[in-house]
Amino acid sequence: MTTGEGPKSRSRTAPGRQDWSSWPHYDGAAQGFRGYWYPVTWSSHLTGKPQPFTICGEKITLIRDGGTAYALHNRCPHRGVPLSEGDQQFPGTVSCPYHGWTFDLPTGRLSAVITDGPGCRLTGKVSVRTYAVEERLGMVWVYIPLADEEPHPIDEQLPEELVSNPFVMGGRIEPRGGNWRFACENGFDEGHAKYLHRTALWRLFKPMPTWNVTRIVPRGRWIYRVQDEVHWEADFPGVGHWSNKRWWKMQPPKETFNIGNTGKADSINPTIEAQDFPGFASLSMPGVLRIVYPNFIHYEFYVPVDADRHNYVGVMVNFTEGWSTLRFYAKYLGAIRWLFHGQFSGQDAWMVDVTDAPPEKLYRPDVSLTSWRNLSEEEYAKKLAGTGADSSAEKEA
Amino acid sequence: MTTGEGPKSRSRTAPGRQDWSSWPHYDGAAQGFRGYWYPVTWSSHLTGKPQPFTICGEKITLIRDGGTAYALHNRCPHRGVPLSEGDQQFPGTVSCPYHGWTFDLPTGRLSAVITDGPGCRLTGKVSVRTYAVEERLGMVWVYIPLADEEPHPIDEQLPEELVSNPFVMGGRIEPRGGNWRFACENGFDEGHAKYLHRTALWRLFKPMPTWNVTRIVPRGRWIYRVQDEVHWEADFPGVGHWSNKRWWKMQPPKETFNIGNTGKADSINPTIEAQDFPGFASLSMPGVLRIVYPNFIHYEFYVPVDADRHNYVGVMVNFTEGWSTLRFYAKYLGAIRWLFHGQFSGQDAWMVDVTDAPPEKLYRPDVSLTSWRNLSEEEYAKKLAGTGADSSAEKEA
Amino acid sequence: MTTGEGPKSRSRTAPGRQDWSSWPHYDGAAQGFRGYWYPVTWSSHLTGKPQPFTICGEKITLIRDGGTAYALHNRCPHRGVPLSEGDQQFPGTVSCPYHGWTFDLPTGRLSAVITDGPGCRLTGKVSVRTYAVEERLGMVWVYIPLADEEPHPIDEQLPEELVSNPFVMGGRIEPRGGNWRFACENGFDEGHAKYLHRTALWRLFKPMPTWNVTRIVPRGRWIYRVQDEVHWEADFPGVGHWSNKRWWKMQPPKETFNIGNTGKADSINPTIEAQDFPGFASLSMPGVLRIVYPNFIHYEFYVPVDADRHNYVGVMVNFTEGWSTLRFYAKYLGAIRWLFHGQFSGQDAWMVDVTDAPPEKLYRPDVSLTSWRNLSEEEYAKKLAGTGADSSAEKEA
Repeated sequence: MTTGEGPKSRSRTAPGRQDWSSWPHYDGAAQGFRGYWYPVTWSSHLTGKPQPFTICGEKITLIRDGGTAYALHNRCPHRGVPLSEGDQQFPGTVSCPYHGWTFDLPTGRLSAVITDGPGCRLTGKVSVRTYAVEERLGMVWVYIPLADEEPHPIDEQLPEELVSNPFVMGGRIEPRGGNWRFACENGFDEGHAKYLHRTALWRLFKPMPTWNVTRIVPRGRWIYRVQDEVHWEADFPGVGHWSNKRWWKMQPPKETFNIGNTGKADSINPTIEAQDFPGFASLSMPGVLRIVYPNFIHYEFYVPVDADRHNYVGVMVNFTEGWSTLRFYAKYLGAIRWLFHGQFSGQDAWMVDVTDAPPEKLYRPDVSLTSWRNLSEEEYAKKLAGTGADSSAEKEA
Repeated sequence: MTTGEGPKSRSRTAPGRQDWSSWPHYDGAAQGFRGYWYPVTWSSHLTGKPQPFTICGEKITLIRDGGTAYALHNRCPHRGVPLSEGDQQFPGTVSCPYHGWTFDLPTGRLSAVITDGPGCRLTGKVSVRTYAVEERLGMVWVYIPLADEEPHPIDEQLPEELVSNPFVMGGRIEPRGGNWRFACENGFDEGHAKYLHRTALWRLFKPMPTWNVTRIVPRGRWIYRVQDEVHWEADFPGVGHWSNKRWWKMQPPKETFNIGNTGKADSINPTIEAQDFPGFASLSMPGVLRIVYPNFIHYEFYVPVDADRHNYVGVMVNFTEGWSTLRFYAKYLGAIRWLFHGQFSGQDAWMVDVTDAPPEKLYRPDVSLTSWRNLSEEEYAKKLAGTGADSSAEKEA
Repeated sequence: MTTGEGPKSRSRTAPGRQDWSSWPHYDGAAQGFRGYWYPVTWSSHLTGKPQPFTICGEKITLIRDGGTAYALHNRCPHRGVPLSEGDQQFPGTVSCPYHGWTFDLPTGRLSAVITDGPGCRLTGKVSVRTYAVEERLGMVWVYIPLADEEPHPIDEQLPEELVSNPFVMGGRIEPRGGNWRFACENGFDEGHAKYLHRTALWRLFKPMPTWNVTRIVPRGRWIYRVQDEVHWEADFPGVGHWSNKRWWKMQPPKETFNIGNTGKADSINPTIEAQDFPGFASLSMPGVLRIVYPNFIHYEFYVPVDADRHNYVGVMVNFTEGWSTLRFYAKYLGAIRWLFHGQFSGQDAWMVDVTDAPPEKLYRPDVSLTSWRNLSEEEYAKKLAGTGADSSAEKEA
């Protein structure tokens, strides 16, 4: 009997680091990195009826009042009843369903207690935590603070090209099983796409490569995957030949070496130049993936719910205006939504749900994973230094 | 961003006691107070087939034999099989389904082991714990002992007026989520009824007050809520006006101050005088609520199952005899059962299930809660002193 | 109130040992004894598509390749994805679905990583644990090792008469709730059959005894139940009369004493002599029950899944060849499968699921249980001594 990586023999046959102790902040961020903006729900779904959400393990209620979205900690301080079970009794407030404790939406302050009359002594002296809210890309975003700090402007965190260019978009928000870090690592993972997605309908007529040589290139707050080599087939000695080429699929480019930045898009629109994107796929904190196609950019936001669940937010953006937006909507609703945001992305969801690491045994293409972990470790350390908050805040979260 | 009662800022913005350390017995009674009688099931539902129940975390089987109800610990000492899975092989006994261990119902003693023949040496030497049983109000009551003490007479624990007066009744036994203490506190809670139940069909034509001033008055082993003020509307500065008055509802009495005991019933029946009830709502150990209406008394018994579940036992009693009982049954089955024991009480069940305290932040009307906690703390301490049992018995339970 | 075996009074009224500390190996074997072969699935169900199983708490994937069955630890060392989610990309291998890590089935060695090309440096240096596999009785058997030892030959563990005699068989593999030890003890338990199965359709026309006197006789690696007395009815003083005799059932033999080996079968087939079986029921490690009927032998294998679940493997064997096998199949499919492996055995499953010991209070007929525990304790100690592995291996499992 041959032994392998069983409990007793692991250290013998699988050398090298297998846990995440090299990235302590990352290791501790099972419920997400605090100190960032996260997309929570579609703006069009938010009304005057409060709704409950969990982000980074934190229970939040969102409500719209007078056109503005507000976020409060979803727990009445009186007896712990979720405010999302309540409703609005007065403009600009939300009331707990149990005893009518009424909170001012902008400040969270207790502004009236219906069942204690106007003389209630707690009025103005008790409050629930509020969260900063913004609306971008048709979604409501909430800032989950490290401590009590002011949030940074959301536009500093959004992909730069989304801040001031006109665009049309389509997307999905989908609750998924598995830790958000597995989802994020899966998204940027250079190795899996070619193999896991080889059966995706999205790639029905286009072959996937067999293996690549990839570099990770940092630029600003993003890291990019740059393909140096793309191999469309391979002979594995003593095992066999493997290729995703098929007679009915398009012919791939000839075996290529040192292809440099060929993964990049030629042009997204007149104002966004291709050289802005040194690679096809890029990633930034707190878990934002950008895939640049010739005519679209696809984004994935991995939003931590708790240690076991996350929300997948997939958005396809076309930087265009006027009549040509119609072509985008037709394409999105007719194909992208079902093939790409649906079946293709469902294969990722399947893997994210069954991934179980650490322990793990990384291989060469996992440079994309370790680069991301390094990035997150550094960016988060910078943030902690910047806010004066120390890592105990993170642990408390 | 305004901070509120979030984890870090709680101590700053929400002064005062927020846990239950002032009431250590109450705090420890998550599974109920032992040393009391609890209603378990309807007498008419109990037959010769043993049935399983859990009361105060204790697994019990009930069975009727020769007209008498018996309660035994629901575990065969041989191999741990629940006796409620078995049946009766001989009169006056119950047999485990696995090997026919047969227990005498009155004493719990092993009276025969079918598969070991008449010479079985364990016969008479092993027994299962038995529980004292009584039948009152059409229900089977079981005494959950502190230790091995003799139970007090059940009539000492029942509401006094139920012991010797003739009456008719209707009721519900309903398993509910949430700790029994939340159910009990909710029942006596002065503050919630006016607001939570403002939409109850039971109050479709009668307005609820907006806020009251309430005193808690002890009398004997009961505490009573006495309304000193009732306010039917209120203006909350900077927030708005609130009232439950509606054009289609009856006009409430004029705004009243110092109304004294007006909450009390004028007369329940010739032998039960109104002055017996200094207030509309009263509460006694181990969690019995009494609401006195002019022609009925409504009772709620909050029966602990375990730390997360309780049984709601709601009973409506009319102190009458003869032909007029028909009028009661018509009224109960036609309306009370659906509107009061149904939808109205369902609103309470909803809140009990989502209450999550401590921590908590009490307000002025919560004097009803703290008075109840004080009562239970004192009564239970007296009981411990009386039986000679110490609080370790409680902890073990 | 009479007290019984309640928590506080147990030590007083139920003397004697109530836990399993006398059998430390047995007590520690909640997930099964390692160092044995276990039947996992039907050979005919195993194909080239890998399937997941759990045996002794160990996650395993089985796959058939070129006619041979293989077993691997069901976890890719890369990122923890179950290999049973993957498929075969090359003959003699299985590939992880995520990145195409490809493992050699006989050795478990990483033989190719599709997405890393032929130059992958981990190839040949990483492996997953493999398990020895055999096929017997139409089933795939896996050896769960204590440590890294070579497995003993499976034929040394199988019931001797199954190794070289021709036979036909029918059987069921059924996942069941409850610990495997309860299932095993139930199978050999002398006391329960007569009482629990008194209502089995399988015994519709044959009465069950009321109580027996039984000896346990060791022979080789088996222990046998030998009936010294069989009693068909009994009078329990002060309780009543009990018998399973009914007017429509066959008359049992006259009350018998000192019946010696009458429980044994007269002849199973020409080559298997009755004297090989000194009793009707016998048991061996690691939980194999043999019930000898005149024309059949029935076996039960209790296969540990984890501490709360086991697989029941029931097999009925007829030692015959040629045309008479048809008669067996007709009898098996027409009756045995439904009455014996179905309803009768379902009564056992019911008890195994609700048994909850220790604590326990054993009685005279439980000599069958304690003999089994003694046997397993001794056999397992011998095994540990033989392999040089110490009990820490067991604990780790």
